Amino acid sequence: MSRSETVFVPAHVTGFFAAKPADDPLVAGSIGAGLTLTDGVTVTVEAGDNGTVVDGEPGTIEAVERVLSAFETDVSVEVETGVPIGAGFGVSGAAALGAAFGTNALDPAPRSEDELVRLAHRADVEAGTGLGDVVAQARGGAPIRVAPGAPGHGDVDGIPAGGRVEYLTFGEMSTESVLAGDLSAINRAGETALAELRAEPSLETFMERSRRFAREAGLLDDEVGEVIDTVEDAGGVASMAMLGRTAFAPGRDLSDAGYDPTVTRITDGCVAFR
Amino acid sequence: MSRSETVFVPAHVTGFFAAKPADDPLVAGSIGAGLTLTDGVTVTVEAGDNGTVVDGEPGTIEAVERVLSAFETDVSVEVETGVPIGAGFGVSGAAALGAAFGTNALDPAPRSEDELVRLAHRADVEAGTGLGDVVAQARGGAPIRVAPGAPGHGDVDGIPAGGRVEYLTFGEMSTESVLAGDLSAINRAGETALAELRAEPSLETFMERSRRFAREAGLLDDEVGEVIDTVEDAGGVASMAMLGRTAFAPGRDLSDAGYDPTVTRITDGCVAFR
Repeated sequence: MSRSETVFVPAHVTGFFAAKPADDPLVAGSIGAGLTLTDGVTVTVEAGDNGTVVDGEPGTIEAVERVLSAFETDVSVEVETGVPIGAGFGVSGAAALGAAFGTNALDPAPRSEDELVRLAHRADVEAGTGLGDVVAQARGGAPIRVAPGAPGHGDVDGIPAGGRVEYLTFGEMSTESVLAGDLSAINRAGETALAELRAEPSLETFMERSRRFAREAGLLDDEVGEVIDTVEDAGGVASMAMLGRTAFAPGRDLSDAGYDPTVTRITDGCVAFR
Repeated sequence: MSRSETVFVPAHVTGFFAAKPADDPLVAGSIGAGLTLTDGVTVTVEAGDNGTVVDGEPGTIEAVERVLSAFETDVSVEVETGVPIGAGFGVSGAAALGAAFGTNALDPAPRSEDELVRLAHRADVEAGTGLGDVVAQARGGAPIRVAPGAPGHGDVDGIPAGGRVEYLTFGEMSTESVLAGDLSAINRAGETALAELRAEPSLETFMERSRRFAREAGLLDDEVGEVIDTVEDAGGVASMAMLGRTAFAPGRDLSDAGYDPTVTRITDGCVAFR
């Protein structure tokens, strides 16, 4: 049994979604599609209860605390977020997933990957901070959430795609407040986008449907909308990370439109694109 | 539409298994567990039918040809095996999976990841060269094949494990001839090993149960058996890659027993161990 374990979990930007609440947090979730990124969250777990540190400062992430309470072993957790918090990168889900795998490595009663994913999904749903990031992050690549919920309930497929991704962040947006509001326009737009993506599961279709979703769902932030328009004028395609004030685009579409974005890549899914 | 695509697919060593034949190749498969490796198969697909090249020489891999026949687009395929052929690394499955993803990138009618995995699984089963490598390779990490068959039929979980792996190869073994023989001892040993691993899904349990399986199933090669004994005498644990004359071990267990093995690592599964 090692006394310390470090794991990396990719960030996940959702392009479009429909919320699927349920009483059972393992059944609750969302459908939709997104990209997992080589930028993401690094979690180090050590034996001994010395609390949680987030980016060097003592702090708490509710989904992480909920994960830890499921284990017998007392641990300390260090989270390096790697991407902006509250900006649509699924940081809470990634931190919860990392805490689950890290703590498991120190625990005398090992669990399987799917059991750990269920634990982290439940924690993120119960904390109200995510409905589908955990199952997407556990799959990697460009996940399509076909049916909501944790392993054993949900179903995740993927767009066979890799390559460079760029993003630009303007700040936070509250996932909780959006999910607590009227979801009918969001869900209608999300269901349509998913059906169209499944008929043609390519990165191009994903970006196109994501861009349309942001407008149809009434979620488009003004500043992000301006970026999307400018990229379109330059012949590219960008959309908004759900739910955050972040614009993202494949390849060099933000750079080519004159912006100075952060550069990352889609993680390996079923295979690694070279 | 690009005119060339290169993808990497990990090798997969099975530690133990039980064969689950069925008339429908998508339902057929195996249960068991193994490790996917950062050593593996690189497949480059180009537009235009100029045949298949394997490690620089014109050649054919039946599972690859079967995959190609499912696409409209005519392509040429270059396979770099990266690991020994016929030695228990799932090269045919990896080549089939790589050919499916590579050709899809050039095809005007895109398919999802799960559709491509189904295509490659069917091809490997129909060619008689594999029963579970493709679904394991598509998951990554240390896959536990809980239920046999392609996505939509089978179920794959994983051991939450990463780190260094070593291997030593003595040559080929025919998967076809073993699968065509009496499977009762193999299947009994494989079912028992799977139940025990699922009760305690750790790398230690996987290695221990794999070593026991090789003997109980009557599959142990003499030379590989000698290596396993020598590693055990040195306080380590090694087992045999199913189905090949290959010994593999976690960490430095082959080196520590005085061998000069090839060094590789477990690929990232649901998370990346650092």
